Amino acid sequence: MYRTCTCGALRLTDVGRQVVLAGWVHHIRRMGALVFLDLRDFYGVTQLVADESQTDLQEILREVNREWVLQATGMVRERSSKNPKLPTGDVEVYLAQIRVLNRSDVPPFTLEDESDGGEELRMRYRYLDIRRAPVRDALRFRHEVGRKVREYLNAQGFTDVETPFLISSTPEGARDFVVPSSRNPGLFYALPQSPQTFKQLLMVGGIDRYYQIVRCFRDEDLRADRQPEFTQIDCEMSFVERRDILEMFEGMMRFIFREVLGVEFSAFPQMPWEEAMAKYGSDKPDLRVEMPIVDLREIRKGLEFPAFDAVEYVGAICVKGGARYSRRQIDELVDYVRQPQVGGTGIVWMKAEEAGLKSSADKYLSPEKLRRIADAAGVGAGDLLLMMGGQLRKTQRVLGLLRLEVARREGWLDPKVFKPLWVVDFPLLEWDEETQRYYAMHHPFTMPHAEDLELFESNPGAMRASAYDMVINGVEVGGGSLRIYDRDIQAQMFRALGFSEEEAEVKFGFLMNAFRYGAPPHGGIAFGFDRLCALMGGSESIRDYIAFPKNNAGRDVMIDSPGQLSEAQLEELGLQLRPKFKPREE
Amino acid sequence: MYRTCTCGALRLTDVGRQVVLAGWVHHIRRMGALVFLDLRDFYGVTQLVADESQTDLQEILREVNREWVLQATGMVRERSSKNPKLPTGDVEVYLAQIRVLNRSDVPPFTLEDESDGGEELRMRYRYLDIRRAPVRDALRFRHEVGRKVREYLNAQGFTDVETPFLISSTPEGARDFVVPSSRNPGLFYALPQSPQTFKQLLMVGGIDRYYQIVRCFRDEDLRADRQPEFTQIDCEMSFVERRDILEMFEGMMRFIFREVLGVEFSAFPQMPWEEAMAKYGSDKPDLRVEMPIVDLREIRKGLEFPAFDAVEYVGAICVKGGARYSRRQIDELVDYVRQPQVGGTGIVWMKAEEAGLKSSADKYLSPEKLRRIADAAGVGAGDLLLMMGGQLRKTQRVLGLLRLEVARREGWLDPKVFKPLWVVDFPLLEWDEETQRYYAMHHPFTMPHAEDLELFESNPGAMRASAYDMVINGVEVGGGSLRIYDRDIQAQMFRALGFSEEEAEVKFGFLMNAFRYGAPPHGGIAFGFDRLCALMGGSESIRDYIAFPKNNAGRDVMIDSPGQLSEAQLEELGLQLRPKFKPREE
Repeated sequence: MYRTCTCGALRLTDVGRQVVLAGWVHHIRRMGALVFLDLRDFYGVTQLVADESQTDLQEILREVNREWVLQATGMVRERSSKNPKLPTGDVEVYLAQIRVLNRSDVPPFTLEDESDGGEELRMRYRYLDIRRAPVRDALRFRHEVGRKVREYLNAQGFTDVETPFLISSTPEGARDFVVPSSRNPGLFYALPQSPQTFKQLLMVGGIDRYYQIVRCFRDEDLRADRQPEFTQIDCEMSFVERRDILEMFEGMMRFIFREVLGVEFSAFPQMPWEEAMAKYGSDKPDLRVEMPIVDLREIRKGLEFPAFDAVEYVGAICVKGGARYSRRQIDELVDYVRQPQVGGTGIVWMKAEEAGLKSSADKYLSPEKLRRIADAAGVGAGDLLLMMGGQLRKTQRVLGLLRLEVARREGWLDPKVFKPLWVVDFPLLEWDEETQRYYAMHHPFTMPHAEDLELFESNPGAMRASAYDMVINGVEVGGGSLRIYDRDIQAQMFRALGFSEEEAEVKFGFLMNAFRYGAPPHGGIAFGFDRLCALMGGSESIRDYIAFPKNNAGRDVMIDSPGQLSEAQLEELGLQLRPKFKPREE
Repeated sequence: MYRTCTCGALRLTDVGRQVVLAGWVHHIRRMGALVFLDLRDFYGVTQLVADESQTDLQEILREVNREWVLQATGMVRERSSKNPKLPTGDVEVYLAQIRVLNRSDVPPFTLEDESDGGEELRMRYRYLDIRRAPVRDALRFRHEVGRKVREYLNAQGFTDVETPFLISSTPEGARDFVVPSSRNPGLFYALPQSPQTFKQLLMVGGIDRYYQIVRCFRDEDLRADRQPEFTQIDCEMSFVERRDILEMFEGMMRFIFREVLGVEFSAFPQMPWEEAMAKYGSDKPDLRVEMPIVDLREIRKGLEFPAFDAVEYVGAICVKGGARYSRRQIDELVDYVRQPQVGGTGIVWMKAEEAGLKSSADKYLSPEKLRRIADAAGVGAGDLLLMMGGQLRKTQRVLGLLRLEVARREGWLDPKVFKPLWVVDFPLLEWDEETQRYYAMHHPFTMPHAEDLELFESNPGAMRASAYDMVINGVEVGGGSLRIYDRDIQAQMFRALGFSEEEAEVKFGFLMNAFRYGAPPHGGIAFGFDRLCALMGGSESIRDYIAFPKNNAGRDVMIDSPGQLSEAQLEELGLQLRPKFKPREE
């Protein structure tokens, strides 16, 4: 037996016990012949002690270094100077015997909570990075979240069904990863971007309630919080209305936040997409701060302020207590909105100071006009109003980003506070100027609102979808919809997307075929599991919650992947590289 | 709300309740104006009734056909003729209202327990096949097994960690599926054949106890019970001896068999590989029958029977009560062993009839000699002894197959009886004549027996591995090993496999590198989840337990995958098809 207990187990009540521990040398401090050694395993750290009386141990301990693997036998005793930060900090093990299980080279970076290693280096040695407490804890946290998700869904009668990974290419989506088939040279499987089609087929197959925690693949350009492979909590239910689905998954979120974090939620607000855009400039509003966008289109009429007259839309946010902002602080906000990725042009500001209203547009706006704006926007004493005008959606978006930037600077976005909501009533279709056609905002199987069905012919752009996103703290943690199960509505949808019957048949043939045989009313949702874990754990980066993440180029620098294939492998697949990608001959 | 209860819920205690059900029309019988309709959902079947008084319903019911989706409202009442086979068979719902939720074409095969559709047709319409009770039940059964596996491993402190799917090609294994990278044209990821390397890296990373129920991929020729993608219960533990691992996973098996099937196991026998080969001619013996192989090498010496003298090995199985076998029955067994896939040459038989011992080799074997054989082989009155001679391993294998064939014919292999065991002490290495080198029988990281380490130089072929297989009813449900964590032993292993240090570095570089930083003693196991479910469910075919299986050519005939890529897709990947695989121009 390698150990009688773990390095996280010993307490004062164990004093006097003979124990065997096994783990890694976290620290070793030599004070003359007195040696203090922190032994670490998955469960914690225990202090081991040897003194000058133990000459045989001294010989081994002279050699021992960080990250060596030891088996240590000894007696638990009370520590003279206790460490209250450590659960085992009241005791130490007075060594009787040490066995070196393995030696270690000196690690390329320190394995402390804050490491001295850069991200690239830590990724290359991810197996060492995982030894650090924050990474280990993140992986354990993920395990706990997954466990609670399953516990909830199992209790609700969902069936965990594994859907295939070697499937066929998805039309209308992001770029697929493909997999050449050696048994069918020249032909390719594709890896799923999500099990969407298969979960709908399971509903046609009568499975009633399906879930899966499943890997998905998207061959896209990577952003900070995107990985080429990511994990979804994928769910689908039959014989349900939208209300049933929202209740079910609001319940799931309430359960896992309570069980994992001890956080209680009341009912989630349901906010129409239109309202989210108008009040927060975003389809994923962060409700940890109020500070909604105020629409100033009505009030501008009498202002005769040219900057506001010429534009489609004028709006503002009111920063409570912001009148104290210095000129420089306001300039920083102006710089922020002018960044290319934000895309604003400028800010017209107004402060409610003790001396009265002051504005960057004093020249154009008399005190009475400022008062009218202040009243309309709810500006109180000491507040700051940040206004801008421009195109409707774009200006709302910039105001939404500015709102978050102010909140960040004020420290109003506490990662330990969680504000969930449902965003509902998304538009069904989006017009694309370039290709001059509509695209499905969610996907082509999303059910339109029943009362909007007649708009298919007259005004499809105004139709609303039975789609919903779950948003927490400005993060879209999940999204889904009721699906079309009626062939006539599906045909109308395809017409709206500009597909002929033949095109629809080619693109979605087997799903359409399945729908001939009694598809039940159904709908579902998918949650981004990596992102949900990061959000719950209070981290900005999903990579912290993935055991072996890839870098921004989609590379795994630890295993050096992707890599070259041999000529023989390519031949088996019926493939050859295009000339410019051939490796140089040696 | 679509339903107040499911089609599996109603009992006599519900009589008088007004209910709403939703589901598919399983059967519809019209007896004049009296209509009986079986409505089916995931949970069961409920009989609905309408009579001539319901004229408005009659109109709808005239049209309704099999697999239409209905919402039915009515009153629960007691049935006059009850159906004891159905949990809901005591009641029926007297219809008040019907809403057609969807129509259905006539399904291409019947959706009964025994369908009239062939496998190919059912695979093409798998979403309909899944509606059949046996398939639905198999998927639900799989869910239950997985749930219990997780319950056990979670309780034992294992952490569920997701390892990547886009990795790099494995040396020394089966053929990998590869995934070209559009961001790195000309370079490829590979899909994992198992997370072996990553789970070992997690141990190096200090995760201590890891598990995952995970998809694996092998681009191999498919046999009846192989799929190109399959699921493993993959586990690894640190600071353990072999004993710890066997106990842990014997405990898991005991738990899931008890919880899912109500089957209790006592301690699993541990059988050395050598004994399994000698007594059952297989490294996965089926212990539902005894009938071990008897070694007749000692006894043959005085027999002077040429057929037994000239060969390396002579063995037999004794069929209890087999003396009643007719000549034709014995001939069928001879035909069986002579099949090419069995590879035997013939059988020398002996019957212990009331009149005395009779044998196919009467000419050579006197009654005294037959008696000596019978005594040695434990042949009792009424038994049949089936003997053969030849090469040691080959003859044992044929005898092992014959043993199973006899047991099958006798009906001794009850799929509801489960006989588990551990096969241990596998050979470490296998000699390959063709390439004139040793291959690792398990994999190159398998720890040799400590007492065999000195044989690395003198006789590597005789070394035993710290590897173990869990076998139930002749099926290898899981296998694993202790891993090498000592760099010197690993170097010896690579030398035994004929790799130079450079080759080992190229093939296993990043794992070897990881092992420089204090790898703990560790070991693990992986279970074939599809196969385990099939075994527990009493089925021969793992396909029954996979929602969307592929056929023997690795094709998914439902979605018609794999398929062609467009020229644009190939170009993005830096690939082109070799000329002979180019699709014909249209």
